Amino acid sequence: MKVILTGDRPTGPLHLGHYVGSLKNRVELQKKFTQYVMIADAQALTDHAKEPEMVRKSVLEVALDYLAVGIDPQESTIFIQSLIPELFELTSYYLNLVTWNRLKHNPTVKAEIQQKGFGEAVPAGFMVYPVSQAADITAFKASLVPVGADQLPMIEQANEIVRHFNQTYKKEVLVHAEALIPEVSRLPGIDGSTKMSKTLGNCIFLSDPPKVVEKKVMKMFTDPHHLRVEDPGKIEGNTVFTYLDVFDPDREKVQEMKDHYQRGGLGDVKVKKRLNETLQAFLEPIRSRREEFAKDVAGVMEILKKGTERARFTASKTLSDVRSAMGINYF
Amino acid sequence: MKVILTGDRPTGPLHLGHYVGSLKNRVELQKKFTQYVMIADAQALTDHAKEPEMVRKSVLEVALDYLAVGIDPQESTIFIQSLIPELFELTSYYLNLVTWNRLKHNPTVKAEIQQKGFGEAVPAGFMVYPVSQAADITAFKASLVPVGADQLPMIEQANEIVRHFNQTYKKEVLVHAEALIPEVSRLPGIDGSTKMSKTLGNCIFLSDPPKVVEKKVMKMFTDPHHLRVEDPGKIEGNTVFTYLDVFDPDREKVQEMKDHYQRGGLGDVKVKKRLNETLQAFLEPIRSRREEFAKDVAGVMEILKKGTERARFTASKTLSDVRSAMGINYF
Repeated sequence: MKVILTGDRPTGPLHLGHYVGSLKNRVELQKKFTQYVMIADAQALTDHAKEPEMVRKSVLEVALDYLAVGIDPQESTIFIQSLIPELFELTSYYLNLVTWNRLKHNPTVKAEIQQKGFGEAVPAGFMVYPVSQAADITAFKASLVPVGADQLPMIEQANEIVRHFNQTYKKEVLVHAEALIPEVSRLPGIDGSTKMSKTLGNCIFLSDPPKVVEKKVMKMFTDPHHLRVEDPGKIEGNTVFTYLDVFDPDREKVQEMKDHYQRGGLGDVKVKKRLNETLQAFLEPIRSRREEFAKDVAGVMEILKKGTERARFTASKTLSDVRSAMGINYF
Repeated sequence: MKVILTGDRPTGPLHLGHYVGSLKNRVELQKKFTQYVMIADAQALTDHAKEPEMVRKSVLEVALDYLAVGIDPQESTIFIQSLIPELFELTSYYLNLVTWNRLKHNPTVKAEIQQKGFGEAVPAGFMVYPVSQAADITAFKASLVPVGADQLPMIEQANEIVRHFNQTYKKEVLVHAEALIPEVSRLPGIDGSTKMSKTLGNCIFLSDPPKVVEKKVMKMFTDPHHLRVEDPGKIEGNTVFTYLDVFDPDREKVQEMKDHYQRGGLGDVKVKKRLNETLQAFLEPIRSRREEFAKDVAGVMEILKKGTERARFTASKTLSDVRSAMGINYF
């Protein structure tokens, strides 16, 4: 059975963007594949070294979100990255197979450095995180890695290391990975910007209470030129309709509303009310499952502990293969 | 009792330069301090990733050299770096506290890149090795680190990380280290170049057989202008006399020979014969102890295994303190 590695950096609770771009797929993928879901705390620390308590808290938040959306610890192995020491060791060996120059030119990292405004102060740990990702992927011999299109250079870097390692140590120890790019990879923020992102403050979180969801929907970006109800409005770039397309199961009703909106005579508030109802219906079961799990934090930690043990077992087998291929298995 | 961390990169057997610059001191230091002696195989791999079998073989060679010169596994903890996974994990957290730029400007690393002729192809692992050294030093809470003067920037980098870590996580977890610079830190190569170095092929190894030592002494660099026995010769920069100064216990005899050489009438061959006798007498007990230990490789590996277990115990306590200061001690 093919192995999938996926996961999230614990820097806050997960939002609708995560659901659409990855969580939803994982619930399907876990039925067909061996799926490892990593809570990447060590990676989060590469650019949040000064906020470890935020990272720590978010580990639990993310775990609750996973369980709430239906990632099943019986079907998926949910684990905490920093508790797999093998990953750090693999990273160290892989760093010797990658040039400093190559890291400097990773397009994803370059874009992120700009986004995060690091300037000259990029932490070294952040620059090397593509190599640590290669360790994550290869440790579990994952051949499928669900990523957004902007993350393709990461898979490329990982595969370069796989090739280089297997060639250098003359053994097919590591497995090449293939990117699995989701159909809908990106949900716009409520402000209409291309991406829902915690940093941009434009998210609806899976754990948001009903009132908060409603408030966020009511201030969502629509067609800025649609000033009077009777005017014709635009659908393209109208975030409320984008969300309806994604979340409203009644396709016919949505089409009807779109026509009406474009003709004129349908006000934003009415469309937003529809979206609010839709999202409340969608989020309600997730929210209530989340609340159930949140009542038993010890139980959730136990799930993470078990998953981490299972993940560690696999990673330690890979590390043992790696050391033996390198000939540094001393005892 | 103060803790010392010291060690060598296993890239071949050790030579007289190692003895004078460090091994001799370690035999003394182990009596006064808690001494950890690290066989730095992971560090050797940062610029020898393609020769792991050489590194592996050298681990045993170096261990034999240690035991032969009198590093006592009862007094010192001799261990293999790559078998302490805590070191890789600490490195990873420290990398988040150091900027990419800072690493680029490490003077020792810059000089070594030039020496090794890496050009644009510096392995990333090599660039980050000062951080991995900080992990080695701090893992054992070493406050004394014997290094050559050219290695001072490494101690500085480690202390910068210590300061930054303790400040960031608001706890005095890591310990500052002090460089311990040996009196005689450097023995010239037999070709007269400033440093004895395997790469330069100008070494006398502790394990060289008598015939090889004699041959090397006979072709040693002296005074290139001392062409006829009756001519006066120079002492400064005359490697044979430099070695006699270091190894010949009969100071008076050496002074007498120096005077004679400078007056004229003392041939190079005679001085070299004296040095050969001196070195043979010095090396003989080391060589025979080495041969004894070499007969029992399993016993030597057992010593390394025990030392590694002891070292790991200490490193894991430090890692636990580090994780708890960062607040990522989940279970």
